[in-house]
Amino acid sequence: MSLVVRNIPRADAAVVDALAGFGVATVHEAQGRKGLLAAYMRPIYRPARIAGSAVTCEVAPGDNWMIHVAVEQCRPGDILVVGPTSPCEDGYFGDLLATSLQAHGVRGLVIDAGVRDVAELTTMGFPVWSKAIFAQGTVKETIGNVNRPLVCAGALIHPGDVIVADDDGVCVVRREEAAPVAEAAGKRESNETEKRAQLASGVLGLDLYKMRERLAKKGLRWVDEAP
Amino acid sequence: MSLVVRNIPRADAAVVDALAGFGVATVHEAQGRKGLLAAYMRPIYRPARIAGSAVTCEVAPGDNWMIHVAVEQCRPGDILVVGPTSPCEDGYFGDLLATSLQAHGVRGLVIDAGVRDVAELTTMGFPVWSKAIFAQGTVKETIGNVNRPLVCAGALIHPGDVIVADDDGVCVVRREEAAPVAEAAGKRESNETEKRAQLASGVLGLDLYKMRERLAKKGLRWVDEAP
Amino acid sequence: MSLVVRNIPRADAAVVDALAGFGVATVHEAQGRKGLLAAYMRPIYRPARIAGSAVTCEVAPGDNWMIHVAVEQCRPGDILVVGPTSPCEDGYFGDLLATSLQAHGVRGLVIDAGVRDVAELTTMGFPVWSKAIFAQGTVKETIGNVNRPLVCAGALIHPGDVIVADDDGVCVVRREEAAPVAEAAGKRESNETEKRAQLASGVLGLDLYKMRERLAKKGLRWVDEAP
Amino acid sequence: MSLVVRNIPRADAAVVDALAGFGVATVHEAQGRKGLLAAYMRPIYRPARIAGSAVTCEVAPGDNWMIHVAVEQCRPGDILVVGPTSPCEDGYFGDLLATSLQAHGVRGLVIDAGVRDVAELTTMGFPVWSKAIFAQGTVKETIGNVNRPLVCAGALIHPGDVIVADDDGVCVVRREEAAPVAEAAGKRESNETEKRAQLASGVLGLDLYKMRERLAKKGLRWVDEAP
Amino acid sequence: MSLVVRNIPRADAAVVDALAGFGVATVHEAQGRKGLLAAYMRPIYRPARIAGSAVTCEVAPGDNWMIHVAVEQCRPGDILVVGPTSPCEDGYFGDLLATSLQAHGVRGLVIDAGVRDVAELTTMGFPVWSKAIFAQGTVKETIGNVNRPLVCAGALIHPGDVIVADDDGVCVVRREEAAPVAEAAGKRESNETEKRAQLASGVLGLDLYKMRERLAKKGLRWVDEAP
Amino acid sequence: MSLVVRNIPRADAAVVDALAGFGVATVHEAQGRKGLLAAYMRPIYRPARIAGSAVTCEVAPGDNWMIHVAVEQCRPGDILVVGPTSPCEDGYFGDLLATSLQAHGVRGLVIDAGVRDVAELTTMGFPVWSKAIFAQGTVKETIGNVNRPLVCAGALIHPGDVIVADDDGVCVVRREEAAPVAEAAGKRESNETEKRAQLASGVLGLDLYKMRERLAKKGLRWVDEAP
Repeated sequence: MSLVVRNIPRADAAVVDALAGFGVATVHEAQGRKGLLAAYMRPIYRPARIAGSAVTCEVAPGDNWMIHVAVEQCRPGDILVVGPTSPCEDGYFGDLLATSLQAHGVRGLVIDAGVRDVAELTTMGFPVWSKAIFAQGTVKETIGNVNRPLVCAGALIHPGDVIVADDDGVCVVRREEAAPVAEAAGKRESNETEKRAQLASGVLGLDLYKMRERLAKKGLRWVDEAP
Repeated sequence: MSLVVRNIPRADAAVVDALAGFGVATVHEAQGRKGLLAAYMRPIYRPARIAGSAVTCEVAPGDNWMIHVAVEQCRPGDILVVGPTSPCEDGYFGDLLATSLQAHGVRGLVIDAGVRDVAELTTMGFPVWSKAIFAQGTVKETIGNVNRPLVCAGALIHPGDVIVADDDGVCVVRREEAAPVAEAAGKRESNETEKRAQLASGVLGLDLYKMRERLAKKGLRWVDEAP
Repeated sequence: MSLVVRNIPRADAAVVDALAGFGVATVHEAQGRKGLLAAYMRPIYRPARIAGSAVTCEVAPGDNWMIHVAVEQCRPGDILVVGPTSPCEDGYFGDLLATSLQAHGVRGLVIDAGVRDVAELTTMGFPVWSKAIFAQGTVKETIGNVNRPLVCAGALIHPGDVIVADDDGVCVVRREEAAPVAEAAGKRESNETEKRAQLASGVLGLDLYKMRERLAKKGLRWVDEAP
Repeated sequence: MSLVVRNIPRADAAVVDALAGFGVATVHEAQGRKGLLAAYMRPIYRPARIAGSAVTCEVAPGDNWMIHVAVEQCRPGDILVVGPTSPCEDGYFGDLLATSLQAHGVRGLVIDAGVRDVAELTTMGFPVWSKAIFAQGTVKETIGNVNRPLVCAGALIHPGDVIVADDDGVCVVRREEAAPVAEAAGKRESNETEKRAQLASGVLGLDLYKMRERLAKKGLRWVDEAP
Repeated sequence: MSLVVRNIPRADAAVVDALAGFGVATVHEAQGRKGLLAAYMRPIYRPARIAGSAVTCEVAPGDNWMIHVAVEQCRPGDILVVGPTSPCEDGYFGDLLATSLQAHGVRGLVIDAGVRDVAELTTMGFPVWSKAIFAQGTVKETIGNVNRPLVCAGALIHPGDVIVADDDGVCVVRREEAAPVAEAAGKRESNETEKRAQLASGVLGLDLYKMRERLAKKGLRWVDEAP
Repeated sequence: MSLVVRNIPRADAAVVDALAGFGVATVHEAQGRKGLLAAYMRPIYRPARIAGSAVTCEVAPGDNWMIHVAVEQCRPGDILVVGPTSPCEDGYFGDLLATSLQAHGVRGLVIDAGVRDVAELTTMGFPVWSKAIFAQGTVKETIGNVNRPLVCAGALIHPGDVIVADDDGVCVVRREEAAPVAEAAGKRESNETEKRAQLASGVLGLDLYKMRERLAKKGLRWVDEAP
């Protein structure tokens, strides 16, 4: 038996939008270097940067039936997160499904598999992060779960978790931690703005971060010529 | 002994151009989900979309001599299809060969190996789908076959078959099947145009494709809250 | 114990700039088909083309501390070359480090690992060739060597060697060989300009390079129809 | 902050042992084709077949400190399951740690990273399923969680879940489902024993499973000669 | 529509057995360095060496239904060759199918996908060359072709072609060329026996193959000390 | 122009043999975690453990000519180290070359490419560490260098360096550092013998290595139940 869960909690919209503003690298640091999906998850066009609430969708290898089911559960501001039960690079998703998701206000797709129609998706401005681009079609024979916890590209994602995706990849923030992570990211960003100005003026990170003494203690030596 | 076959049958030009218009994903579906080259075959720039008749060229690993031989067999509207006899990512092809092919009306290159001079190829508007981009040069020592059946990126290609290539990848259509496939693709596209309008208006695929009953029969259940 | 070498020899600036003009494929051929880094080293944006003197930086897996140390050793016109002591795709480098390098006149980064903040790096116009794009952060715990010989993406690089990088990949030219390689590349380019004109006019490479006789001797046969 | 959880529920020992007897392929089928770890998880020697309760251990890339912490939480009959927070092939585990685990009755190791000392581990008869064999050592700098839910080789594993591992790979069975899955696997196995005898006597699966009619309905045709 | 072809030509049994005796490397050389399947095709146990006539079987990704159909078309001395229409590592094949094939005199399986029950297959002495070992099961929903030309692991295989497989991998010999290839392989082997004796006595290949002059002409120089 | 260097320094035979005794993991640690070749370098049979002086041999992709040249430079106790100038998985080496090397007292082969005849090599007891097993043959057209510094599987190897290879992989020890590394490895091994006895008796590494306080300081907390 498989389940579709209709009601899922979602993070506060303002928090989600704040996380989009910070981007993946900053959010990842702000939450203690966790939550990244595998490095093979790449955007189909660049630049792209979004955040939204995860609607999770489990699919069988080579079978995109459950994506049609998941569309109905999406709300404006959501991101659809699709993971197959076995590794697959088939093209589960194309411009018709994107048209449907866009009509329902969905901000993008994160899929641990392949997509197709990428020229059309680019023209439509519907961002996708995927493992592959491949035209190989899929069937509609097997059911799966919607809005149940899902492993996608190596990361555990709960329905309603916040997904942040940009040119650097994809990161998941647990819904319960979204607000404090957004706050930490904001502080981190202010801090970086200051540092950026200093570094742009030529100050060395070695001095800005006061690293010299600790490096020397670890045993680093500077010599004028190669020995 | 190796052979160069001078005369090969080609598909009707109008059919070839129609196939280009539909693109890889639609053509692949229209012919029953077959004929795709491996997902690792990617265009060196995007967007790009072409179709043409295959001139096939077998090369030894790290040896591009036969590409020079194959150029002579190309006609306007052709696509050169190159496959090595052993896996290789060397840069078999660059801007000089592209200049020569372009002078003879060739529409693009599909190569299960590497290419180089991609900045120049992009500026020239000569599209290439390849396994790799790599500057590693090749030698001219070993002969092979031109216009003989060839396995390229996992697909069997006969000389004169129709190659369709776009941002989604590369697909081969058997020459004898090109006309009926183009017709089927046309029907598929009309059908999709209608569906796209409906989906854009917010109609769900679940309803448009009448999937609810079959999903329920397979055992899918909708619940309001996670159990 | 780890070392930072302050003074390294560098190639003549005019020679370095000449090599940038020729690009990777031409330089690679001009020096006898050697010196290429692995094909997985790709630019984060295209087009990009630079040459510069290598400042080499050894890092531990998941630890970017030594990059901060290496910045101080960079001079205008340099390229920072980073290699981990064990394979790693973490994002060692982002926009803050790029700001610092740019402030010191560094032309770009070559890193056999991951980078992040690629949207910002693209906007800044700071080119990077890397193995991966990944937001996974790094720590600052382990020291390594700066300006010592380094294996990066399979190539041996000495501090002060000339790095040439463009859309085709990355090539290293030994410092002692930079001048003769630049000269050979110049000759090769003039030669290619002539050939390009001939090929563009429709002359076949088979005739331009006088290949027909040698091909026939190797056993190549032309037939009008497939046997 | 990181946590070590001391008390975790475990499945009934008889059920665990029954699951070991059935092996991965049968268990995987018996629970509805779910729970497999990625295909790259391979045993360091063959044959090997075990089942046990999962003690989960999160480690940083290149840092095996938490494995030492996890040993203390292991009980006889357990299997240690280790997953890094970022992909890593370093050799986290060797014969000293195996000696310690064996002394505490642990049945084996499942690690989504590298191991070393495989000759010694083979001699000791301590089975390991890993992503890689690599002598690259690790450090002891970073803490992580023990006995918290973990994603290992693409599968979600809770502490106390049952791990089944053999020459075919690794499968996780949710602790709550272990008893019914063992029962289903038992039925499946009896059923297979009967079928095996029939097939060994030359009966075709086509007839044994009564497939001919359904195949014909799907459109399969038998012809005497190739068309 | 899909087809099962009942009658296929097969090579002479004595020739097939002779090819088994020579092994893959010798056969591959004897037929002009062609016909190898991709290097990722590995035996599930070693040593193993067989040759036989190919019964070809096309399967959908994640669907092993057609293997059951193909069993009926196998004769004693055959090798079953299975290729999916899209890349897949699922475990299509296990000990029940092997029992059935063995009952019909089939010598082994070559499959460009995954297998499972490898411990049992090893005990049974039923050799398999596969792309992966993976317990992930398959379904029985989609039909395909049996005894039609097939691309398997990058090589084109016709029904009735001779498959040679050993610890080095898998090679296909066109049925029409089997006899002359066996003859050429025999000559090659006699020749190698003589050479082996010479080399074992300490004669250098440089002298045995008279390479010194040609090497010198190419520009090779011997020096006593590193320059 | 390419060079063959006749006279190379070698490490003391007793030191080399001592290093063989310690194995790769211990030697790698003893020299400060450096010198490992890439994790994809695997032995063709197990168990196998050797050490020897490196004779280095540079080859072109798909061309094994220089291996024949290198044999003449080998002395009893050497290990032949082969690296291609571009990535290649072809089968450069088989039983004839092994017979020749064995006749000259060579202990084994380390090759960043493919080998073949692995069944025969196993029977002969000639160990090989390679990137691939592949029957694809090579040609004899291109010259390269023998006994010049070489990058092999990501590691820089000088002629005369000590190669240590076992079931865990391959490690290079700089010739000048061989004696102190052997000494350090010896100390490490004695130390490990003691620890092994303690761990086997059930003492925890946490106590043996006195880790508890440092872990607590880093923030690790033990709880009785999952929060």
